[in-house]
Amino acid sequence: MPHLPHIHWSGSAETGHLRLLDQTRLPTERHTLECRAVQDVWDAIKRLSVRGAPAIGIAAAYGCVLGAQREAFADATTHLATSRPTAVNLFWALDRMRSLGATTPAPLLAEAKRIHTEDEQMCRRIGEHGLPLIGEHTSSTRGILTHCNAGALATGGIGTATAPMYLAHEQGRPLVVYADETRPLLQGARLTAYELGEAGIDVTLICDDMAAHIMQSGRVGMVLTGADRIAANGDVANKIGTYGLAVLAHHHAIPFYVAAPSTTFDFSTAEGADIPIEQRASEEITDGFGHRTAPVGTKTYSPAFDVTPHNLVSGLVTEKGLIRPVNEQGIRRVLKGNGL
Amino acid sequence: MPHLPHIHWSGSAETGHLRLLDQTRLPTERHTLECRAVQDVWDAIKRLSVRGAPAIGIAAAYGCVLGAQREAFADATTHLATSRPTAVNLFWALDRMRSLGATTPAPLLAEAKRIHTEDEQMCRRIGEHGLPLIGEHTSSTRGILTHCNAGALATGGIGTATAPMYLAHEQGRPLVVYADETRPLLQGARLTAYELGEAGIDVTLICDDMAAHIMQSGRVGMVLTGADRIAANGDVANKIGTYGLAVLAHHHAIPFYVAAPSTTFDFSTAEGADIPIEQRASEEITDGFGHRTAPVGTKTYSPAFDVTPHNLVSGLVTEKGLIRPVNEQGIRRVLKGNGL
Repeated sequence: MPHLPHIHWSGSAETGHLRLLDQTRLPTERHTLECRAVQDVWDAIKRLSVRGAPAIGIAAAYGCVLGAQREAFADATTHLATSRPTAVNLFWALDRMRSLGATTPAPLLAEAKRIHTEDEQMCRRIGEHGLPLIGEHTSSTRGILTHCNAGALATGGIGTATAPMYLAHEQGRPLVVYADETRPLLQGARLTAYELGEAGIDVTLICDDMAAHIMQSGRVGMVLTGADRIAANGDVANKIGTYGLAVLAHHHAIPFYVAAPSTTFDFSTAEGADIPIEQRASEEITDGFGHRTAPVGTKTYSPAFDVTPHNLVSGLVTEKGLIRPVNEQGIRRVLKGNGL
Repeated sequence: MPHLPHIHWSGSAETGHLRLLDQTRLPTERHTLECRAVQDVWDAIKRLSVRGAPAIGIAAAYGCVLGAQREAFADATTHLATSRPTAVNLFWALDRMRSLGATTPAPLLAEAKRIHTEDEQMCRRIGEHGLPLIGEHTSSTRGILTHCNAGALATGGIGTATAPMYLAHEQGRPLVVYADETRPLLQGARLTAYELGEAGIDVTLICDDMAAHIMQSGRVGMVLTGADRIAANGDVANKIGTYGLAVLAHHHAIPFYVAAPSTTFDFSTAEGADIPIEQRASEEITDGFGHRTAPVGTKTYSPAFDVTPHNLVSGLVTEKGLIRPVNEQGIRRVLKGNGL
């Protein structure tokens, strides 16, 4: 099993239900949410039990089928759209379910499964385009450093940044992965270390401030992360900490790659400076894990994302091919099959 | 009160004992350890209840007095030397206690108190030599970024990296400080944010992986950290994460300074590559917040320190003066009054 089946429809279209691995309980508990009503899916998305743009879209599509079981498909799509107000993949998936023109469970379940399968195939193609990089830059002693979770748990397949890792492991190639724990929400520790470990991949967890030292010591052959949004010029918005890794990689002459589906590219955004950066709540830093780690009243600054300028990105791995070097022309050339 | 009296000898030389603020319980609890035996001090150093090179040296000196109370001074020095392998101040303080030629409590306590007072004066002189850098590089909108805790809590006075901050604050100069939380043990969140906040200094806490972004955004005028050991050529061993900050500062053309007493310089170590790097236990990463944050059995890599090459260090602030640029000749010139 190359990845975790964390989103799964169980049973028939008319009486079946959605099973979701509750990611908020990882890594200590493997608890499955049995979603039998639209509200259950709404709650799961809202609470981050399912997270990662592609995974949210897939869960919402299955949620529509639950609505249709009670002859309330239209209400379901309207309600699910309010669960994560900024999640683009959520709206995209709900629009696609609506545009099918059906309101009964059977055709809607078939469409949800197509969305799921297409995402799975997209992940695999990213993996195939990224796989040669592993032989090119890494070895049994020079690993891949990754940040946050752009993994199977964020998608309907083998992830984006993790896709080349799963394929390399399938083929028995030498593979060593370093996972940044990724403060403040520790997606690297809770999710990436979990899913790669479950797959039998050799993964070593480090704190974010250890990345420079392991690069200096020669342990890192390449950095590979996901992306939340990529501007037209190739600037990459991703989880806070990504930009720092890109600077450190540049200093150590280590290639820095980003893996993302073509839907992550936003041609209406000219460059990274135009991407708004969300600020997160202080408590995520000061009370991260049920234990206060900073004095009451401490001021914090907590951007959710940072922007890595395209000149620090060695290549962009998409399902349509590898974009290298990274510039507007290269991006359009590789993605043009998508009409972009 | 400019700083916290966290190391304190209570009572007479013959029957008194050492009181240490347990830094592992900050910031939520202010608990004092009553050390009545050498082993209590050894444990306090090992467990990081007292940490920071100068503070460890002072605590160990007082620990020798506890040994002498039981006519076991020589055993005490031998045992205390095993508590932290990288702490050069520990060995320095123990050697100084030995070289006194006394084995009874009264003269040893007087010597320990001299070490303590000298450290307090040393901190203030570091502050005076570092103070001009604050006007030179920072303003009310460009702050100082620091890592870990090279503060009052790490010394017998107003700290090393924090000393110029305390003096600038005393003089009412514009001062903004960013404190890295400093994983895995969160000394920045628990200690630096705590002590600077207690002193009324404007301090903002960030996660370690946010440092690059705040540099990119123009919020940082200089980086100022402490050091655990400085090699003869000026290479700096300090808390893991320091080297990464130096690389990031270099990329953003932000000056990177290190403040440390002359006792931190180790002329028997030619360069940073010769400094042994202690590995810390996995649990500090996986169970760091009083709550398990990584799967059971996850492999970790957890160096306690990293080494910043001298060419990335803009200057060394010592109690004897500012060493700038950083090279072996400059170091010897400024420190030669110490007979080095």
